[in-house]
Amino acid sequence: MVKPRPIRVSGELELIERIRRRVSGSASAGLRLGIGDDCALLRPRPGDELAITTDLSIAGRHFRLDWHPAETVGHRALARGLSDLAAMGARPLAAFVSLGLPKELTTARIAWIDGFYEGLLALAQEFKCPLAGGDLSESPLAIADIVLVGTVKRGRALLRSGAKPGDLLYVTGTLGGAAAGLARLGTLEKQARNSRSARITPRLMEELAPHLSPQPRIAQGLWLAGRRAATAAIDLSDGLSTDLAHLCVESGVAAEVDEAALPIHAAATLDQALHGGEDYELLFTAPPKTRVPRAIAGVPVTRIGQIVRRRAGRPQVVLISPDGSRPLEPRGWQHFC
Amino acid sequence: MVKPRPIRVSGELELIERIRRRVSGSASAGLRLGIGDDCALLRPRPGDELAITTDLSIAGRHFRLDWHPAETVGHRALARGLSDLAAMGARPLAAFVSLGLPKELTTARIAWIDGFYEGLLALAQEFKCPLAGGDLSESPLAIADIVLVGTVKRGRALLRSGAKPGDLLYVTGTLGGAAAGLARLGTLEKQARNSRSARITPRLMEELAPHLSPQPRIAQGLWLAGRRAATAAIDLSDGLSTDLAHLCVESGVAAEVDEAALPIHAAATLDQALHGGEDYELLFTAPPKTRVPRAIAGVPVTRIGQIVRRRAGRPQVVLISPDGSRPLEPRGWQHFC
Repeated sequence: MVKPRPIRVSGELELIERIRRRVSGSASAGLRLGIGDDCALLRPRPGDELAITTDLSIAGRHFRLDWHPAETVGHRALARGLSDLAAMGARPLAAFVSLGLPKELTTARIAWIDGFYEGLLALAQEFKCPLAGGDLSESPLAIADIVLVGTVKRGRALLRSGAKPGDLLYVTGTLGGAAAGLARLGTLEKQARNSRSARITPRLMEELAPHLSPQPRIAQGLWLAGRRAATAAIDLSDGLSTDLAHLCVESGVAAEVDEAALPIHAAATLDQALHGGEDYELLFTAPPKTRVPRAIAGVPVTRIGQIVRRRAGRPQVVLISPDGSRPLEPRGWQHFC
Repeated sequence: MVKPRPIRVSGELELIERIRRRVSGSASAGLRLGIGDDCALLRPRPGDELAITTDLSIAGRHFRLDWHPAETVGHRALARGLSDLAAMGARPLAAFVSLGLPKELTTARIAWIDGFYEGLLALAQEFKCPLAGGDLSESPLAIADIVLVGTVKRGRALLRSGAKPGDLLYVTGTLGGAAAGLARLGTLEKQARNSRSARITPRLMEELAPHLSPQPRIAQGLWLAGRRAATAAIDLSDGLSTDLAHLCVESGVAAEVDEAALPIHAAATLDQALHGGEDYELLFTAPPKTRVPRAIAGVPVTRIGQIVRRRAGRPQVVLISPDGSRPLEPRGWQHFC
């Protein structure tokens, strides 16, 4: 829980109080007790199961203090956890964050920790997900571990393991946008190093948005779970090639992806769409007889391939293009460090 | 969730599989789905509330790779979380661990990560608390964020905020043992630096045990919550002086501690008993008419003072000794770095 224990700077108690005050408005029916005790207390509805996930973000690996504004680090940390809930078809109930921060980010640069919570809480509010607790510690390295708790009706969770040969393969939104945005950040850094400043144009913001402010597909996951429309689902955090391989392994199946059908983000390359991580779109399977709409809650849904039987000696995932087919090896999580 | 994403070393998938295999035997009625999907799924019993806590352990602050065997780091990380559940009177349902590790602790020294899980899972098994998931990432700094989920009957949780003037103040076990053990580790290091080796005697092991292998007071918390015996409770993670101050603030009361009554650990000083952290005993309050036994589930319970009305200008906690009384300032969490 958020305790004053580990940060030994003057003003530590005020820091906890600031967070507590800021969060106090975000109570919900399922949260009986938030920050301030040894544990938070949640009260799920009878018949609900709880979906729980943890995601670790580490400075230099998952974000860079010199590239990512604090608000963005908070937003992205929470988005990762919310996206895991989306992939289960779960509704957010509460979030927790364990934060380890160098002293200068909590005192001299108090704005940083404020910015982090600003970004995190704005997204939390959007998804009606109160921040219920966490831990706070001084640390030589900035790290944030996010914990998300969601609810899903008993037996309705979307699993990775339910895909069957013959099922069709779908994806929400577009692919590769986050990787393209990350690459753009790299270009901007090079320009800055050469003392050339980039103009912040609407087009630039549009290019960076998928990386800086990914949108978890909670509504789409709820739709799929609520209608029992999907046989399996996973979120695209590591990249299509890697996450589809996970889904195939857990389901004991293989898959064929139709290159021409891929909804590639306008700023992205094919490679970024296939292997770029952090798009946080949903990849799911559904039987051919299931009517899957072209959009769910305003987000396009695209059929990109199908599930086939796993055969020994054959690649688990095949990419079919106009030039023929080739194995699609998992080459996801292109990271920036 | 434990995903292969962040550790980019050869053998990363095997690592996840090792953890998964090791954990697979520890299913429980409340855990429907463990490691391997986007989220774990828990199924609490109707009428139960969920208690959730997160605790961050950082190398150099909460443990030292050169002092603490890997098993100890795993044990202590889980014990911190279990102790928070104990303080709420909750029964463990599932644990999650987000682990950030330097590459050499996962490959060259694969024994380290094995040892960590060895220590964590041994304690988890003792408390019937399956490891249900987590995250795994390469990190320049070793960190472990532990998440504990427990259940408590609706409305029965022990809170920090329920203490009333007139209540008596109790503590389980003995105080200062962990701080004394930590100090002993420091002495051993100095001896080692001077090339003098210490003999590992039964007495030495006994002195180190409260620091290296703290025992969360789950049974005692369950006893207190089950009988509605306590009006408030907190676990002694930061030291009596600091944790009692927390309890007083949350309850809006003050307290008097009777120095002569303190159950000081045989190896500890008064200062260690008052301010030394990590004893993980329970501090609780009960009305005078409540019969509190001298031991709960084999652990001694000692009355150490009482709750009084908070008065402006008076210290929140007073220590009463044969020589008179003095304010007991929160000086807890004496840490080793």
